[in-house]
Amino acid sequence: MASIKPSLAKGTRDFSPVEMDKRNHIFNTLRGVFKKYGYNEIQTPSFENLQTLTGKYGEEGDKLIFKILNSGDFLRKVSEDMWAGRDSNVWVPTISEKALRYDLTVPFARYVVMHQHEITMPFKRFQIQPVWRADRPQRGRYREFYQCDVDVVGSPSLLNEAEFVLIYAEALQLLGLKDFNIKLNNRKILSGIAEIIGKPTLLVDMTVAIDKLDKIGLDGVNKELRERGFTETDLSILQPIIEMSGSSMEKIAAMKTVLVDSAIGMEGVREIESVFDYLRQMGQATLLEKVVEVDITLARGLNYYTGCIFEVKTNEVKMGSIGGGGRYDDLTGMFGLQNLTGVGISFGADRIYDVLEELNLFPESQSASSVMLIANFDKATESSTLPLLCRLRQAGIAVELYPEPVKLKKQMSYADAKHIPYVLLVGEEEVKSGRFTLKTMHTGEQQHLNEEELLGFLGS
Amino acid sequence: MASIKPSLAKGTRDFSPVEMDKRNHIFNTLRGVFKKYGYNEIQTPSFENLQTLTGKYGEEGDKLIFKILNSGDFLRKVSEDMWAGRDSNVWVPTISEKALRYDLTVPFARYVVMHQHEITMPFKRFQIQPVWRADRPQRGRYREFYQCDVDVVGSPSLLNEAEFVLIYAEALQLLGLKDFNIKLNNRKILSGIAEIIGKPTLLVDMTVAIDKLDKIGLDGVNKELRERGFTETDLSILQPIIEMSGSSMEKIAAMKTVLVDSAIGMEGVREIESVFDYLRQMGQATLLEKVVEVDITLARGLNYYTGCIFEVKTNEVKMGSIGGGGRYDDLTGMFGLQNLTGVGISFGADRIYDVLEELNLFPESQSASSVMLIANFDKATESSTLPLLCRLRQAGIAVELYPEPVKLKKQMSYADAKHIPYVLLVGEEEVKSGRFTLKTMHTGEQQHLNEEELLGFLGS
Repeated sequence: MASIKPSLAKGTRDFSPVEMDKRNHIFNTLRGVFKKYGYNEIQTPSFENLQTLTGKYGEEGDKLIFKILNSGDFLRKVSEDMWAGRDSNVWVPTISEKALRYDLTVPFARYVVMHQHEITMPFKRFQIQPVWRADRPQRGRYREFYQCDVDVVGSPSLLNEAEFVLIYAEALQLLGLKDFNIKLNNRKILSGIAEIIGKPTLLVDMTVAIDKLDKIGLDGVNKELRERGFTETDLSILQPIIEMSGSSMEKIAAMKTVLVDSAIGMEGVREIESVFDYLRQMGQATLLEKVVEVDITLARGLNYYTGCIFEVKTNEVKMGSIGGGGRYDDLTGMFGLQNLTGVGISFGADRIYDVLEELNLFPESQSASSVMLIANFDKATESSTLPLLCRLRQAGIAVELYPEPVKLKKQMSYADAKHIPYVLLVGEEEVKSGRFTLKTMHTGEQQHLNEEELLGFLGS
Repeated sequence: MASIKPSLAKGTRDFSPVEMDKRNHIFNTLRGVFKKYGYNEIQTPSFENLQTLTGKYGEEGDKLIFKILNSGDFLRKVSEDMWAGRDSNVWVPTISEKALRYDLTVPFARYVVMHQHEITMPFKRFQIQPVWRADRPQRGRYREFYQCDVDVVGSPSLLNEAEFVLIYAEALQLLGLKDFNIKLNNRKILSGIAEIIGKPTLLVDMTVAIDKLDKIGLDGVNKELRERGFTETDLSILQPIIEMSGSSMEKIAAMKTVLVDSAIGMEGVREIESVFDYLRQMGQATLLEKVVEVDITLARGLNYYTGCIFEVKTNEVKMGSIGGGGRYDDLTGMFGLQNLTGVGISFGADRIYDVLEELNLFPESQSASSVMLIANFDKATESSTLPLLCRLRQAGIAVELYPEPVKLKKQMSYADAKHIPYVLLVGEEEVKSGRFTLKTMHTGEQQHLNEEELLGFLGS
């Protein structure tokens, strides 16, 4: 077998022990919060039947799905017409039956439909799994990355939306973030606005344009609105809405005036108010004032969401949104199960990782696994340390004995590289006296302890 | 978008909350033990460059690797010769550059070579990730399944082998297994046997035949040995070796006599003795007597292992091996890094899952996430319970409020289905008195508690 210089597949990453510990810190924190709010974890397979995924993400999305080549003689099924046509797109469904998960939403919808007779509604689930996209790799964008989704289906109550605000706040605070905003909007408010300017069919055009306010500014938005068929009269109505400022409560009050003639619009406002009411009753006045922010220009995933829409941004680091979600009324319709309402949010794990890294918020202790390394002097002292090694481990303490009697310097470097905080020196003298020398790597300080004292010291 | 009846891709599974909790119980137990022995977790990407994987698993293995179809116009690179030939095997490397991980060993070897200047030797890593194989699915065999590997590279010390015995024993005992054997052999002993019968080139033939003793019995083994070119004289020497019985110590003593003229064979015996010595010094006499078993017929993965060989079998359930491993002297040679010794073991997570299920060894508490459900009577009492809900969660207790005031029966069914042990009933009366009714689902028993008592009860 010829030796080849190994490389990673484009757009993928290895995770070293330190990176694993950091990522696990994020996942475990999220998992803990999700569970506290009554959500249970599920997992779906890495690949699905191709037809389960195609047609769900738009034409561009379909192209980014990784297809798995059929095993065996895959060319056998290719028809003579296809041989003549030589069209890759036409060939795909014939030579590929399976595809890698592109997001967690479609597999979740499939899961709910397939297991509808086993699961109890409302079904509260979370899912933390990698997804794969054939995107052009670039800084911060990978072809394999994790999504963390929390959803509840089968419950129309806005208590769920309120609890998602709390889940966001609690998880991000636990991760150490101090200054972030949870933006809230409602698709019905956007529908109401399109209705009052008499352009309900231009709803998507309107929101696509307004959604860009952050990026292209008010003039840019107006330009785009004109291009998309809005008149100057429309613009004059839209202007105060787009520019709306003030506190969330002031915005809600203003929207009530603007949308008074739109039933759907008023329903959207009432829904947001209801989420605020829940949070207030839960004693979250500070959160509502400082963190939650009504943002009428927020439109993400509009074709999909039917009620409340969420987006989370950190103000401590320059970074896109680190989370988002909303309510949808037809998640499972694509698989034949109609009228099942759901609401969910997701956390952008990779971005959160980068934010914590930049703010130096990962706990130090995450990067070590062993608490102590027992240095290996020679065969004789090695024997003497074996019972100690076992007793420490029996006490639940992560300890290593260096496996060979190599130079002490090399053993110290090993402890250093693995961030092992203590090294135990057991020479002939120590074996005789039963008192070991414990070196604190960080300070170089040494202390002399017998086994009992050592157990007490490391176990505490 | 047409509605399609959803199905799983062949050979794949969903994991429901209960199944996830069970699997996480296994993974977390293993993780805890691995870390206690100084092993750190890494992860590699789900797909690798196809050339990283092909040629590593034999011809049959190569066929079972899932290949990923190139994105875009993948037919563009197909040559006119290939168009004419219509040979699927020839086409693969042209239309597929990437493939799904087939095991954890080859990606680990790639990892070690690519990161050789960052990692500190000895490098102790574990990896718990799914792998994919295009096998024909059958009962208990899936196309996506987890492997759990623990390896150390860069250390020749047999202390590592001894610690792997302890890792197996501790992990399986923690999972609740009571009767299992850790079988131990050494490739050098097998080489020694082939040497003393003067057929070193028939080593593989010999071990393939002997390895089948369990399945086809002594007569079957002898028949196969004859077919593979062994004479009656050879068989008469092999016979007492194959039939060797008694304790491990007796087998070791017997092998010393048989192999006295084979340097390599004696080295193999000394290595096994050394592992036993380590374990004895660690106070593991009972383990050596009851659990560890020298088995000269054990040959698994012979082309690969160069020293000690492990295999684990449970005696409580009829099941193939639930773990195995060994020492290899050339893991990374395929990627150009020579002479790096390593030793590792793996746990068969799916089989262990089935064993624990059959023996009913999964802890009950794993199947619930919330400790208590607060029943939802009506809008007014709902409001009154919101502060309580938040305070319980602030105390770290996993609690849910049913999101709608539906019939109590339905809410009870929900708690039942989710294995939530307690339901809190908060009606108008309870709100007034500040004393809530806590129902224990298991017994139907009710008790009346104020908030403080409830916190104490659930928090303990």
